[in-house]
Amino acid sequence: MTKLLLVSALALATLLPAALPQPASAQADPIAERKAGFKRMGGHLEAIKALLDNPAGLRAEAGRAADMQAFFGGLPALFPPGSDKGETRALPAVWSDRAGFEAAAGGATAAAAKLQQAMAGGDTGAAAGAFRELGASCGTCHRGYRGR
Amino acid sequence: MTKLLLVSALALATLLPAALPQPASAQADPIAERKAGFKRMGGHLEAIKALLDNPAGLRAEAGRAADMQAFFGGLPALFPPGSDKGETRALPAVWSDRAGFEAAAGGATAAAAKLQQAMAGGDTGAAAGAFRELGASCGTCHRGYRGR
Repeated sequence: MTKLLLVSALALATLLPAALPQPASAQADPIAERKAGFKRMGGHLEAIKALLDNPAGLRAEAGRAADMQAFFGGLPALFPPGSDKGETRALPAVWSDRAGFEAAAGGATAAAAKLQQAMAGGDTGAAAGAFRELGASCGTCHRGYRGR
Repeated sequence: MTKLLLVSALALATLLPAALPQPASAQADPIAERKAGFKRMGGHLEAIKALLDNPAGLRAEAGRAADMQAFFGGLPALFPPGSDKGETRALPAVWSDRAGFEAAAGGATAAAAKLQQAMAGGDTGAAAGAFRELGASCGTCHRGYRGR
């Protein structure tokens, strides 16, 4: 008897949702539904932000940008007079347009300094911007002062 | 005798670099030095790019942006007439300025669509841009259509 009641109750519970008429899902409780949705959106935004941001990784590798800043700061000294001969693709412009060459090296140095600051601060957006700037400065120098 | 010669040779080899006059390090072989430096810079750039880029992670989570696109696309339907009563912070403007509210929801939908495209394509820069746009669209709607 007890078992029969239990089985009947289970059967009823299983059938009930399908047997009774249901209101349209979107209108059942729109306030609860939109609140749950906004909460889910918040979770998506946090998860995607975590994918885009990497403050700890950037901080850990900021020394690389510091080394770039130092290297590009000392770049002109690595192109002394006479070092145009030998296994080098340096164009004569490195020496004939010295001011332009030094300005290009200065641009890379400034971009590397910005990158170092952004990485040390764990700022992914600023680091991405400085990284693009540094990449552009590579191109500027390679186009004008390096042969193919 | 053999041992004595060996010890002498080792002692000489050890002393030699210090005993002989050395040229200034930067001028020893500037071509080799700058080439090694540029190679090191290339390694830095690749390592930092890998920190800033996360194509596999973005692709894996692109479904979140797709869900946002779907949710914001259906947002107006979750604010039917009468759903201004109850536990909600929705302002009367949601219904009185329906066109503005729907445009705001449309802005979020468009930004989520861009984000989905960028994530599915593993494009970190584009994803970061679309993410900022989506965040701005949240603010637009919350300022005009949600109470405190």
